[in-house]
Amino acid sequence: MIEDQFVAPSGAFTRSVPVRFSHCDPAGIVYFPHYFDMFNGLIEDWYTQELGYDYAELIMGNKYGFPFVHLECDFKVPSRMGDVIDLTLLVERIGRSSLGIAIVCHRDGIERLRARMTTAMISLESHKAVPLPQPLRDAAEAYRQRTAQ
Amino acid sequence: MIEDQFVAPSGAFTRSVPVRFSHCDPAGIVYFPHYFDMFNGLIEDWYTQELGYDYAELIMGNKYGFPFVHLECDFKVPSRMGDVIDLTLLVERIGRSSLGIAIVCHRDGIERLRARMTTAMISLESHKAVPLPQPLRDAAEAYRQRTAQ
Amino acid sequence: MIEDQFVAPSGAFTRSVPVRFSHCDPAGIVYFPHYFDMFNGLIEDWYTQELGYDYAELIMGNKYGFPFVHLECDFKVPSRMGDVIDLTLLVERIGRSSLGIAIVCHRDGIERLRARMTTAMISLESHKAVPLPQPLRDAAEAYRQRTAQ
Amino acid sequence: MIEDQFVAPSGAFTRSVPVRFSHCDPAGIVYFPHYFDMFNGLIEDWYTQELGYDYAELIMGNKYGFPFVHLECDFKVPSRMGDVIDLTLLVERIGRSSLGIAIVCHRDGIERLRARMTTAMISLESHKAVPLPQPLRDAAEAYRQRTAQ
Repeated sequence: MIEDQFVAPSGAFTRSVPVRFSHCDPAGIVYFPHYFDMFNGLIEDWYTQELGYDYAELIMGNKYGFPFVHLECDFKVPSRMGDVIDLTLLVERIGRSSLGIAIVCHRDGIERLRARMTTAMISLESHKAVPLPQPLRDAAEAYRQRTAQ
Repeated sequence: MIEDQFVAPSGAFTRSVPVRFSHCDPAGIVYFPHYFDMFNGLIEDWYTQELGYDYAELIMGNKYGFPFVHLECDFKVPSRMGDVIDLTLLVERIGRSSLGIAIVCHRDGIERLRARMTTAMISLESHKAVPLPQPLRDAAEAYRQRTAQ
Repeated sequence: MIEDQFVAPSGAFTRSVPVRFSHCDPAGIVYFPHYFDMFNGLIEDWYTQELGYDYAELIMGNKYGFPFVHLECDFKVPSRMGDVIDLTLLVERIGRSSLGIAIVCHRDGIERLRARMTTAMISLESHKAVPLPQPLRDAAEAYRQRTAQ
Repeated sequence: MIEDQFVAPSGAFTRSVPVRFSHCDPAGIVYFPHYFDMFNGLIEDWYTQELGYDYAELIMGNKYGFPFVHLECDFKVPSRMGDVIDLTLLVERIGRSSLGIAIVCHRDGIERLRARMTTAMISLESHKAVPLPQPLRDAAEAYRQRTAQ
């Protein structure tokens, strides 16, 4: 198998996640839905720690939601209990009310899986899409530009 | 929004899943990784109940694994606590050691989400891909043909 | 080890749950938090199917919550992928706004684990305990009596 | 309600956990089985970071398991998305092959929930209890003594 190399762009938002007993299945590797849960946590942290928007407040206070509209994922190298994996978030596209995000899971310079996903911003009251607030859009665009590969 | 109609092909493997409290997030809708867990359960049941292969035995007894290689999903209509959703499995492609499966989540004739995924068959001992056993391949192919849309 | 026999009382609410791949950990047995998720699902179904109260409607419509106040559990026999386990719900105590429930997980007449738990009924608006509505109390009490061991 | 104060003993193993969107239910508070998953993670980290035993290696390498035998939990104050909760592990009892552990979840000096649990050490090959290795026992006993309240 040819391995995919991955080096996170300078300044990209990366968090390490220990692969736990509870993530793993009887085959000893991460049960795949847990990756999506990790990704959701990474997006939360990116909003809060990188963009400066408190994700909990956006949802519970401002009544916004960020449902997934589309998701695709290539699984390349499995991860085992005890591994520490790095997750890097990249912005691929900024729409009127949507964000196209890629999350790369890697370790030691090798890409283990890559997901591309589109989230929408909606009002939890009207259940309709709302335009990204301009400051949030600006913060996401600035992040996109400074981490473009 | 234009809704996508969906009618499961005659003879297609469909199971109903009640959307539970535990599936739902603070926005009151299914937290998306739970769908993938439901899909894995559906595939398990399809092997066991439709193809006649005991999925637990394949894994624990025969030491085969069925990791996901690729997955993509379009989320169209959210599901709420108390909904009962129908999941239908369709076979799209049969490779040497891989299966291309589509799972459609629908209710009342409307498609709510659709996932397309590729699983490989591997040996849990060698961690290498193994060819689908001929009887399993034949069973999957027969299913594919009788449920082709 | 001396095994504990268990025979569900006549008329007791019992549901079977297949132990899935996703329930099991790298040791090949059910990862214990999944039992509590199964128990929550059983309680949901008991309200809806046995007592005649739509659990989703109680929460989403009437804005009631049923948080756990206390829980204890003895784990006796592990369950493995492919097992089908039976869960039986028994009412042990009915308080002003609380229910004392036991859930026994068993198979083939052998008790595998037993949990005893207390849930409160609260208003999701005031976050305070509310008295069990009299018809709900009556239904729970009737169930308790007809399934008393 | 009278709140329970909690101050972790000096030197006690404490880790902070952010309460995430994915932990919370439609009532906006942590869905209780997630606490048990957090506890399992804390125990993992305690073995590895405090006692100096690589938990993944104990399980995958040495084929030991640490199933729960008994668990009880009092839920006192709910936690909401965006909260950061502290989890402190205390050793209450060391048996031949079992550990009695308490985990206190607290924030700002207030106890939110407390679990007491007994784990056994077993061989994953014989599925029988094995005595705690003396160095592990010693490390656990030293921890117990230096954090006794």
